Amino acid sequence: MSYETSRDAFYMARAIELAGRAWGQTHPNPMVGALIVENRKVVAEGWHKGPGQPHAEIEALKALDRKRSQDAALYVTLEPCSTEGRTGACTRAIIESGIRKVVVGAIDPNPDHAGRGLEILKNAGIEVSYGTLEEECSDLNLIFNHWITTAEPLLAAKLAMTLDGKFAAASGHSQWVTAEAARDDVMHWRRYFPAIAVGANTVLQDDPSLTSRMDDAVFCPRRFVFDRHLKTMAAQRMPKLYSDQFKEQTCVLCLKSANAERKAAALDAGVGVWELPEDRGHIDWTAFRERCAAETVCGVYIECGPALATEVIENKKADYLFIYKAPKFMADSATPGIGSRRATASMSDALHLENVHHEILGDDVLTRGRLLR
Amino acid sequence: MSYETSRDAFYMARAIELAGRAWGQTHPNPMVGALIVENRKVVAEGWHKGPGQPHAEIEALKALDRKRSQDAALYVTLEPCSTEGRTGACTRAIIESGIRKVVVGAIDPNPDHAGRGLEILKNAGIEVSYGTLEEECSDLNLIFNHWITTAEPLLAAKLAMTLDGKFAAASGHSQWVTAEAARDDVMHWRRYFPAIAVGANTVLQDDPSLTSRMDDAVFCPRRFVFDRHLKTMAAQRMPKLYSDQFKEQTCVLCLKSANAERKAAALDAGVGVWELPEDRGHIDWTAFRERCAAETVCGVYIECGPALATEVIENKKADYLFIYKAPKFMADSATPGIGSRRATASMSDALHLENVHHEILGDDVLTRGRLLR
Repeated sequence: MSYETSRDAFYMARAIELAGRAWGQTHPNPMVGALIVENRKVVAEGWHKGPGQPHAEIEALKALDRKRSQDAALYVTLEPCSTEGRTGACTRAIIESGIRKVVVGAIDPNPDHAGRGLEILKNAGIEVSYGTLEEECSDLNLIFNHWITTAEPLLAAKLAMTLDGKFAAASGHSQWVTAEAARDDVMHWRRYFPAIAVGANTVLQDDPSLTSRMDDAVFCPRRFVFDRHLKTMAAQRMPKLYSDQFKEQTCVLCLKSANAERKAAALDAGVGVWELPEDRGHIDWTAFRERCAAETVCGVYIECGPALATEVIENKKADYLFIYKAPKFMADSATPGIGSRRATASMSDALHLENVHHEILGDDVLTRGRLLR
Repeated sequence: MSYETSRDAFYMARAIELAGRAWGQTHPNPMVGALIVENRKVVAEGWHKGPGQPHAEIEALKALDRKRSQDAALYVTLEPCSTEGRTGACTRAIIESGIRKVVVGAIDPNPDHAGRGLEILKNAGIEVSYGTLEEECSDLNLIFNHWITTAEPLLAAKLAMTLDGKFAAASGHSQWVTAEAARDDVMHWRRYFPAIAVGANTVLQDDPSLTSRMDDAVFCPRRFVFDRHLKTMAAQRMPKLYSDQFKEQTCVLCLKSANAERKAAALDAGVGVWELPEDRGHIDWTAFRERCAAETVCGVYIECGPALATEVIENKKADYLFIYKAPKFMADSATPGIGSRRATASMSDALHLENVHHEILGDDVLTRGRLLR
């Protein structure tokens, strides 16, 4: 790595940090961070705060609030936009600012736009480079990158397992598989996604709140319950998801054929109800994706027990996986793992992750990546 | 971390590197590295090369080969010995050298000696500190630390699994679970252990050579085959372990009751035979440990298929585990995992690792640690 490259990486790392200040708050937009460097000093910083708010580059230019110096360089985690949207094209603002050097992290993932921002800047005589911490810059926007290229929500499954791939003891007892650092990390990802989903069994067994609790702040995303026959509406005690202060964020996904009284009870409780078709004993995933897309729910974090994990992994219904591994073995063949009998003949029949990231969380490890189709 | 602490860590990291030059070559002795710093420069380095060879401190003092300067400090990964063995007490040599400052990584794990070396140096007026990179210094000597405190071999099990804890496809096909970086890492650990063991099924299915192949060098440790009835001696083709250039390093472990002709065939082939008692359908582990101890085999790296893994983990016969995890799912309930039905009632029935280390190896992860009794 040359001196220049390592300096660029240093500033880009800071821009990534800035982007992350709006963690989970920009959907369906990307998180973006930008900064301006003059004479090797960061003189202005900005980040995109959410839909309708100025883009990161504009924020950085506003923060500078004076004419830039001769050597000013702009660092931005994502290629500047070149379309005149609600907030005006960033490329135009950059050109007008007189900045003569722009360093970009990731290219716009939208194939219709990719590279166009760079081109416009270059044509204006600006020195442009891209690819600095590209992977990290792109990894910031797992949801946006998927949404913008597919117009579908990123369905991500989260699993917590022992080293031998088990979710619980043979009795069903599962609290806890992982330790505190990993459970805190789950809060971080709950804050990232605009929606969380669980199966009905998890609601009945664990009565979770599915909120993100970090730094004394509580955030509640949209909450989905996969519950074809609305059995959670027949629980002895009303689950938290249907009765806490955030219950309006909850939506039960059931079949048209589900018991009408239970549907009415859900609506009475103030909870949303989506009636969706069935596919192979589960809510139809395509219909679920379409409904999410229609409501601009661009990402769903599905917290899986063994049955839901089997469904989304074996049938490749999830786009992305978060696997937390605790350094433990249940070493009990009666404990729940994943998979039905699919007669695998060779290791190449395994389902693979790509773009794999590992994070060491105390004694546990998070392995995450895209589930290969 | 103070400036001084971070300087000490810098030198100690170098001493650890030096110790590692004799990776796997010092059994049953520990790997130890030492260096001498004068005026912030490393002026002499040494490491223990193997039994009967000088200790690391002595090597470093020899390498200096002149009177030390006033401010000379000695860094050593393990507490200097204070007993007059084959090579003379290191504490005496240090005192005689006139060095006035000694920085130690790990304390002697032998409870009879722990702290005595430090005490002797302090009593001689030397400034002594310990605990710099203590964990890393101690981790160098997994085998020695166990051997010196228990007089038993460290039995370590190595497993390669998918995220869902599977060893192979339902067909039995298992090449490969992990990718190249992880398989190279196995070579590294094969070089660390004085002995490797496998089950008879692995010999019959994979016909492994169990050598360590690194940097164009081939090393062959002692090789053990758990084969109660000597079924590997009835294989169509003579396994490599019994016919390659290292066959004298191989020893089959069978029952007294094993077929006499097969025993004779093994001996004829030039392979060792250990007759051991049986325990619950397996070679008796206690007898195996005792025989290893009697022959100064201080560590055994057991490469496990699913049956052997179940035996050593569920019954806690292994002291230490190396678990390689590939970012894949078999998602097939008919594929081999570990564990028999032991009716776990709660997560606290899980078997735990302690002193957990994680190493990221490309897309795979190694999790290793001591199996808690």
